[in-house]
Amino acid sequence: MSVRIDIDRLSARIAALGRIGALPGGGCKRLALSPEDAEGRALVTGWFRDLGLELHSDQFGNTWAIRPGRGGTTAAPVLMGSHIDTVATGGLYDGALGVLAGIEVIEAVSEAGIETERPLAVAFFTNEEGARFQPDMMGSGVATGALDLAAMLAQPGIDGMTVGEALSRIGAAGPEPAGALRPSCYLELHIEQGPVLERAGRAIGAVTGVQGISWSEFTIEGAAAHAGTTPMDMRRDAGVVAAGIVAEARAIARDFGPPQVATVGRLQFAPDIVNVVPERAQLTVDLRNTDDATLRAAEARLAERARALAEAEGCTLTQRSLARFAPVGFDPDLVEEIAQAAAGAGLSGCKMPSGAGHDAQMFAPLCPTAMIFVPSQGGVSHNIREYTSPAQILPGVQLLAQVALARAGHRQDRT
Amino acid sequence: MSVRIDIDRLSARIAALGRIGALPGGGCKRLALSPEDAEGRALVTGWFRDLGLELHSDQFGNTWAIRPGRGGTTAAPVLMGSHIDTVATGGLYDGALGVLAGIEVIEAVSEAGIETERPLAVAFFTNEEGARFQPDMMGSGVATGALDLAAMLAQPGIDGMTVGEALSRIGAAGPEPAGALRPSCYLELHIEQGPVLERAGRAIGAVTGVQGISWSEFTIEGAAAHAGTTPMDMRRDAGVVAAGIVAEARAIARDFGPPQVATVGRLQFAPDIVNVVPERAQLTVDLRNTDDATLRAAEARLAERARALAEAEGCTLTQRSLARFAPVGFDPDLVEEIAQAAAGAGLSGCKMPSGAGHDAQMFAPLCPTAMIFVPSQGGVSHNIREYTSPAQILPGVQLLAQVALARAGHRQDRT
Repeated sequence: MSVRIDIDRLSARIAALGRIGALPGGGCKRLALSPEDAEGRALVTGWFRDLGLELHSDQFGNTWAIRPGRGGTTAAPVLMGSHIDTVATGGLYDGALGVLAGIEVIEAVSEAGIETERPLAVAFFTNEEGARFQPDMMGSGVATGALDLAAMLAQPGIDGMTVGEALSRIGAAGPEPAGALRPSCYLELHIEQGPVLERAGRAIGAVTGVQGISWSEFTIEGAAAHAGTTPMDMRRDAGVVAAGIVAEARAIARDFGPPQVATVGRLQFAPDIVNVVPERAQLTVDLRNTDDATLRAAEARLAERARALAEAEGCTLTQRSLARFAPVGFDPDLVEEIAQAAAGAGLSGCKMPSGAGHDAQMFAPLCPTAMIFVPSQGGVSHNIREYTSPAQILPGVQLLAQVALARAGHRQDRT
Repeated sequence: MSVRIDIDRLSARIAALGRIGALPGGGCKRLALSPEDAEGRALVTGWFRDLGLELHSDQFGNTWAIRPGRGGTTAAPVLMGSHIDTVATGGLYDGALGVLAGIEVIEAVSEAGIETERPLAVAFFTNEEGARFQPDMMGSGVATGALDLAAMLAQPGIDGMTVGEALSRIGAAGPEPAGALRPSCYLELHIEQGPVLERAGRAIGAVTGVQGISWSEFTIEGAAAHAGTTPMDMRRDAGVVAAGIVAEARAIARDFGPPQVATVGRLQFAPDIVNVVPERAQLTVDLRNTDDATLRAAEARLAERARALAEAEGCTLTQRSLARFAPVGFDPDLVEEIAQAAAGAGLSGCKMPSGAGHDAQMFAPLCPTAMIFVPSQGGVSHNIREYTSPAQILPGVQLLAQVALARAGHRQDRT
């Protein structure tokens, strides 16, 4: 392959974007549609422009840039994409890597004088993280029709401002309709955000799909009571029920075995006073599995046990689904192509599912889609210590370039 | 007995005091040394003055009023006391009842033209609740020498102001030294704040003492990790350890049996995000027992199990004692006297320990001390729905008058 990826240029762009919303101690905070996000968008769009690409943005702020193929920019492009928003304590690589690697691939392809049959494109999608506005993967969901535009514009954020207001505030809404972007193929390079590659000593993950995700919120209502004066047999302790649900989530993961995972990330007591039996407890359970039937079995067991625990304590229980994504399978041919290319390049790779959600999963129903993972040091992500070294990034970008060019119909310039 | 308790007059005083800091829907908020507390102090002190009593207050704001005995006001009085501060969502009876019943007893005794050998006195103590300034029972602790005056004056409140500053702000500090009040006998009428009397259908509790109280705070440090990308066997989940400690506290209460109680009132996760394994969890465990050796056994079992749970999860655990009061026994003769008097008056009574802390426990080492409980409807206290009816209060006040007069050396006026 005659394309030469300039890892220093890419690293410089990662660092430059990371300076926007930089946090003390490292990492950055660029919540979706915040002033920092606006600044990040301007920087990245400037790079699109510097490369002479054709700029597009839709009414939801999703932004993409096209390098013409042999027939210009009208054919469905091979799209490389991800996001540039972050969580409140984000790192420099989650999302940003996929977008900036797409820029690097296009710049390297142009430097190599390569003409492709199909256009190459690079995109960033609005609000992948869901840290300010729920749900996550919102922009790619709107772009692919999985989420309703009007409903998403009306979603309020954690600060009370709606998505629509925030888009207007920073002038991020573009002229094109939400469904305007129609790629022929979607590729996303991303850090793993987990410890699997590092632990296995592998350089590349050919991502087979995304685990199904089930988020439930349980609210338990008991009775506040004095910790000293209330006999145990007269208590209706919402906290004891909540603790039982935490234990059950762990037991489900143990009994079902990998790839089943279960996490209680949020748990709150009210009134949360040392000497008052909790009147109310609220917790979330995050269940994930690559197999939808198994995931449903996990959900059913958890719901049944929660109900029984609440009943035994004389508490009421309400359960609410916060999010439910069925497992998504990526295109087997494209996944195999990535795995073969990795092997051909002498890289240690493996096929693996993604434990996290990504914009790619929104495109999977529309066109051949796959992802390439590179390792996250210590498995750390959504954290200012998130890190993947330039030496770990480079093979991922080379692979991205190779597969993107193959799918775009690589033709060496004949001049 | 020739003393006639005027329950309507007492009810009117309870209502009048309850209007200060009144909350929507009932109850009131008079945090210690707040402007509302200042207003409450002025109202109650005015009633002291109306009865022609000799007023005293010490440098910590503890305030008492003396009705002379045969030898004037110099002999050690029979003291009836409690507090008039409340928690943030307090009721009208907790504390206020003991103080206003003391006023009623003295007024009724005077109306009956009774002369006593010893003086009768009524007192309210600063900051019994500990809702604004920790620890609770602070004023009675300072008055009896159990707590250090200078250290308590320096204690910061939840709003950052120290006790000393708050005393000055509302002008509550008096001229007398902290140890000036030395009763010959201490009696406190209080609502039970629990459901035991109501459930047993009893009108009066002759309180044998106060349960020992052990408050521990456990802090668990694990590692934040992505809920989707982190295999279960690589997790160090602080929340799972916390939930295990909640379950163990409940198991200890079950295995030890009554009167052992165990409560986890506070529990917090960090970062408390749906899809992040908790990095940190903090919880409190409140253990109580009337027997100190049993309480120590409960503490030891909990600490050992917490350590094992943390170790199994690869987390670190720190344990801190927030408060520790050994069980307090009241004067057996005085308790028996109350029980006998109740029986003599045809009241259904029982001897019982107090599950909550009270000012009385501070006086127990100094002089014969006991408490009288009247029922709390539904066992509800520290809540705007706290309620004890006038018909339930009346026998308690009559008993208080009878025992106080007996201890003061009741002599009918000879005129």
